[in-house]
Amino acid sequence: MSLPQSAAAVRHDPARRDFTSDNCSGAHPEIMSALHLANGGHQQAYGADSYTLHLTDTFRNHFGPEAEVFPVFNGTGANIVALQAVTSRWGAVICAEQAHLDEDEGGGPEQVAGLKLLAVPSEDGKMCPAAIERATAQASDVHSAQPLTLSLAQATELGTCYTPEEIRTLTACAHAHGLTVHMDGARLANAAVALDVPLSACTTDAGVDILSFGGTKNGLLFGDCVVVLAPSRVSGMPYLRKRSAQLASKMRFLSVQFEALLDGDLWQRNAGHANAMAQRLRRNLHGIEAVTVSRPVQANSVFATIPAAARARLADRYTLYLNDEAQGELRLTCSWDTTEEDVDAFSVEAAAAAGAARIAN
Amino acid sequence: MSLPQSAAAVRHDPARRDFTSDNCSGAHPEIMSALHLANGGHQQAYGADSYTLHLTDTFRNHFGPEAEVFPVFNGTGANIVALQAVTSRWGAVICAEQAHLDEDEGGGPEQVAGLKLLAVPSEDGKMCPAAIERATAQASDVHSAQPLTLSLAQATELGTCYTPEEIRTLTACAHAHGLTVHMDGARLANAAVALDVPLSACTTDAGVDILSFGGTKNGLLFGDCVVVLAPSRVSGMPYLRKRSAQLASKMRFLSVQFEALLDGDLWQRNAGHANAMAQRLRRNLHGIEAVTVSRPVQANSVFATIPAAARARLADRYTLYLNDEAQGELRLTCSWDTTEEDVDAFSVEAAAAAGAARIAN
Amino acid sequence: MSLPQSAAAVRHDPARRDFTSDNCSGAHPEIMSALHLANGGHQQAYGADSYTLHLTDTFRNHFGPEAEVFPVFNGTGANIVALQAVTSRWGAVICAEQAHLDEDEGGGPEQVAGLKLLAVPSEDGKMCPAAIERATAQASDVHSAQPLTLSLAQATELGTCYTPEEIRTLTACAHAHGLTVHMDGARLANAAVALDVPLSACTTDAGVDILSFGGTKNGLLFGDCVVVLAPSRVSGMPYLRKRSAQLASKMRFLSVQFEALLDGDLWQRNAGHANAMAQRLRRNLHGIEAVTVSRPVQANSVFATIPAAARARLADRYTLYLNDEAQGELRLTCSWDTTEEDVDAFSVEAAAAAGAARIAN
Amino acid sequence: MSLPQSAAAVRHDPARRDFTSDNCSGAHPEIMSALHLANGGHQQAYGADSYTLHLTDTFRNHFGPEAEVFPVFNGTGANIVALQAVTSRWGAVICAEQAHLDEDEGGGPEQVAGLKLLAVPSEDGKMCPAAIERATAQASDVHSAQPLTLSLAQATELGTCYTPEEIRTLTACAHAHGLTVHMDGARLANAAVALDVPLSACTTDAGVDILSFGGTKNGLLFGDCVVVLAPSRVSGMPYLRKRSAQLASKMRFLSVQFEALLDGDLWQRNAGHANAMAQRLRRNLHGIEAVTVSRPVQANSVFATIPAAARARLADRYTLYLNDEAQGELRLTCSWDTTEEDVDAFSVEAAAAAGAARIAN
Repeated sequence: MSLPQSAAAVRHDPARRDFTSDNCSGAHPEIMSALHLANGGHQQAYGADSYTLHLTDTFRNHFGPEAEVFPVFNGTGANIVALQAVTSRWGAVICAEQAHLDEDEGGGPEQVAGLKLLAVPSEDGKMCPAAIERATAQASDVHSAQPLTLSLAQATELGTCYTPEEIRTLTACAHAHGLTVHMDGARLANAAVALDVPLSACTTDAGVDILSFGGTKNGLLFGDCVVVLAPSRVSGMPYLRKRSAQLASKMRFLSVQFEALLDGDLWQRNAGHANAMAQRLRRNLHGIEAVTVSRPVQANSVFATIPAAARARLADRYTLYLNDEAQGELRLTCSWDTTEEDVDAFSVEAAAAAGAARIAN
Repeated sequence: MSLPQSAAAVRHDPARRDFTSDNCSGAHPEIMSALHLANGGHQQAYGADSYTLHLTDTFRNHFGPEAEVFPVFNGTGANIVALQAVTSRWGAVICAEQAHLDEDEGGGPEQVAGLKLLAVPSEDGKMCPAAIERATAQASDVHSAQPLTLSLAQATELGTCYTPEEIRTLTACAHAHGLTVHMDGARLANAAVALDVPLSACTTDAGVDILSFGGTKNGLLFGDCVVVLAPSRVSGMPYLRKRSAQLASKMRFLSVQFEALLDGDLWQRNAGHANAMAQRLRRNLHGIEAVTVSRPVQANSVFATIPAAARARLADRYTLYLNDEAQGELRLTCSWDTTEEDVDAFSVEAAAAAGAARIAN
Repeated sequence: MSLPQSAAAVRHDPARRDFTSDNCSGAHPEIMSALHLANGGHQQAYGADSYTLHLTDTFRNHFGPEAEVFPVFNGTGANIVALQAVTSRWGAVICAEQAHLDEDEGGGPEQVAGLKLLAVPSEDGKMCPAAIERATAQASDVHSAQPLTLSLAQATELGTCYTPEEIRTLTACAHAHGLTVHMDGARLANAAVALDVPLSACTTDAGVDILSFGGTKNGLLFGDCVVVLAPSRVSGMPYLRKRSAQLASKMRFLSVQFEALLDGDLWQRNAGHANAMAQRLRRNLHGIEAVTVSRPVQANSVFATIPAAARARLADRYTLYLNDEAQGELRLTCSWDTTEEDVDAFSVEAAAAAGAARIAN
Repeated sequence: MSLPQSAAAVRHDPARRDFTSDNCSGAHPEIMSALHLANGGHQQAYGADSYTLHLTDTFRNHFGPEAEVFPVFNGTGANIVALQAVTSRWGAVICAEQAHLDEDEGGGPEQVAGLKLLAVPSEDGKMCPAAIERATAQASDVHSAQPLTLSLAQATELGTCYTPEEIRTLTACAHAHGLTVHMDGARLANAAVALDVPLSACTTDAGVDILSFGGTKNGLLFGDCVVVLAPSRVSGMPYLRKRSAQLASKMRFLSVQFEALLDGDLWQRNAGHANAMAQRLRRNLHGIEAVTVSRPVQANSVFATIPAAARARLADRYTLYLNDEAQGELRLTCSWDTTEEDVDAFSVEAAAAAGAARIAN
């Protein structure tokens, strides 16, 4: 297929690879192909198209016969819409203290949806039932915002994964306290592949009620979904998506990407590759004196402390994501298109930077 | 270029053409080409990429040296973000009674941004200064929501266009009353081409302060922009976009589409073609007894009253958008990819339906 | 009882009487007495006091055995809290185009609670079922804010009263469309007395689900209540009151006033007197040439058109409330403490002003 | 003056004294007297009365010639309105981790006003500049809610007071980072009296921009105020108060109470007495083995850890406020009407309970 000449120009170096985030990568070729498939002709807008209609089957194959899917533009949108659909006006949302929701969504949950967040301690991003118990116990009267929802991330913001059993324990605790359970699954595919379980094992089968399912970080051009897993606990989704400016008019282009991702094994190939690259990076960094891998590497991110002077050197070649300034801890994230060469080249640079830094000292 | 096999299947009839909305069409081939150009390699997310950096030049070429551009996902998002950036917490927004803002955004402006809308009468979608005067005069004390912003649509929701001079009169009136002016330009390209003026004539040069610039309806895969025209009247845009869930991580794919649309003449070709098809449709319908073109056709939509029985017949072949049930008024919108054959085929069907309806009566 | 000397001074003319609003009056002596009764000693705050506990009985005597009462500070607060308790996040509220909610609460319902208001036409402030049907029919899809609540005022903002049967018709229509029914009863006492029915006749027995019950305008120092009539349709009241800053700490002082108002017949005496004064004023004005009583007088307000020159003269002595500038229509409201002499004095002034105005012309 | 018989009954024990909160007390007799002074006659509503007009002088005498005062119903209302007036839509508010704002306002700031709160560590309720520096440093990009306001409580929620110099240091730090400074002064009178400084010393003269000034806890029937100290940093107050349902119609009754409180020395007498009773209680408790005064006593609250068995015994006679369950820490608050006998009686009971508890163990 030959595409017509566009007025746009190539303005980037296709060989460039960073470890800043998995959203530095572009779209997988099969996703591009899917966008072409869905193009041409007229289709009804706002989800009344054949691609979106098909999507229910796609998601039910993965998440069970009750699942309902609502494509949205991005992860922040998915979280804000999903949480509103399970949290009454007066409710609060319990989340981990590192939750993207609390730290990285610019105050959107509070400002756009009026959701008070109750951040609780976690270990490497994972909450435990006791933290949920404490947060609900503290909301003993009308003066406290009432926890109505638990939001957990899988994989977590610190690159760790809950086991399905850990999730079941948390959702059981939450349900026992009358909370509904939301999962921020921006990297759910990475977690499922890492755990070697189907997508349902950490979600539907583990008691999760509503899910933000990430696509953007796993090879899509753009797009995430809200997936309703327990319809009886969720209300207003179609209206909430619309009024939150997350209803795409040309929705076929969102839907066809998820079809391409999930009807075959692209989701596994992409996530599995990114995870494998993270393990390779972990092994490489492990061998470098002065560099410490600081968290369990369970998905596609490696957290490592690197001396400041070494980071400064590395920054000449790479854009770095500093997770914890006090600790000098970097987050290094691998993508579906990160190659072994990319990992090794970075590792060599890191070793050189660390060595030079040591000598300079 | 050959694309890999995707798991997705073609699920639609590429020959299908409707007149329901200009967002029933897909993406223009040059837009698809631009997406491919921007793909590959890693780039910093959230707008720190070379395509987004270039976009400032693109928009300044059209909207003047002060313009600042913020790509967002869709028109509702653009409107909600832009209005928040010019309206204090306690302000209200004056708009036409048919405004998309008031009628078709699911309560988003009120629910997400707390914006009270003051809908004023219009003629075929166009407001006059007297309506603005009345609305501001009525807000005489603290018991009334205070109008701080005027929002006008160009082209309007009823397919008409303000002349640049009409816009200047409205913005002068608004500014004299201390209001900031927002334009909902979901179809600004259609209006500019119809008026045969540059994009700046109806916006920057006419006193508009902030603009929602539509891309989706004019051949993009997805994407609109907020364009700040009078920076001194606008605040908080980067933060408001983020917290409103309109900050794309892989922003290069939004930006490159606008580059393809606006660096050359694609915006004019697409809008001009859609407008021409609307004029052809108007002429065709004009000749059909029992069908009345009910509004001036000034952009890419034709409004026409058609008897109920005729509409019922047409509905066998076409999805119809009923604008006014009481009047039996359809909105028929042409797209960048609507062909003369499409228009003529619809007209033939409409004539047959109208004729059959007449005979049946 | 002798009260100690306060640092405050008398700063007003106790003989002054206006007709601007029934909130220009002060507190009835029996209300002052009740405040003294409740003073002294310590009581638990936020409603865990004996006066508030008693209030449930007080309200159930009037509104039936299901009623639950929540004292709040003012009418705007009552409306905002009550509407949130019956309207999901994505819902809209149908109200009359003159509704205090829409016109006189400074955008609070939208800005504080995200409630989109759908104002429908009324006759002298009273809506009809057809208007509700139309508003719900128009919200046919996800692009429209979804009407979930009907809010009607009794007495209306234009001084008229629905009959119990009219209310039953409206609530039946609302319920048939899945709407919950809220009543803005800032002047419910005036309406009930005018109709010569118990408070339940226009509310519980007529299908109203939740009520803002006014006290401030009927002789209280301050205070209104939200009264839940159909608990199964209402949720979150205690939390919504708190988070909306309407939970009084020294609640006993709110509650004891309602006890004084409602355990005896003070509510009837106050409202009945105000109504009677309005009728006297109506009769007086009826006899003045150039003055036209412009609305049915059914509660404690008289609407009358008076020539501009006459209004200007009257304004030397009285603060006037201009309801409709174009029509020159005043709203004249009587209070629990308006005397026959006050009414007659105003009427004499009005006649003189109208006469002088006529001569001047 | 003899008051008429009300339908209300005395329903409480005027001799009852608790230490749960200073809002368990009633209204000071001079406040009751002031309410009577302002009653009678008609006055314009919503603040256009002579009492409210006088209030500007009252507050300027205390807070300087720029001060503007806005009476509101309660402290939560004052905080929510004040914070909105100094915080743009996209802003966040830094406060202490024990802030009433964050812990005890039912999620109101987030849900009603969209204010994201950034709780920072404190020592006995007092923040230090380093905590503010860290919070602002962390909000380095668009993904973080942007701190625009610092809110500090004086006295703090833990019964401590900032010195004027400590406040100046905090406000200087805040202003240097572009933050506006709000003070939650629900107990400002207690702090000023304890520090033996005028009200301006901790506010206007220390760089505070806007103040919630508490009246309810210091002997009023009801009422707090927002006091604008730096008008150039504040916008929209009249509109924000109205739309937040904090605009009293019969405002004279709010205003005259503040006149009675502040034109003479009632504010000092009430606060000074409450403080003195807290010191007496502290001394009494200090002598009881097994009871530990756990925080500096600097205003009118004493924090003390008491064994669980002793608390259980005390709870037979007193309603207790458990501040920290894990520590067994009570908050004991004295009011303007707490007597020496009350304090001593409680202390005797506490000693007995502690003794009995020790023996029981």
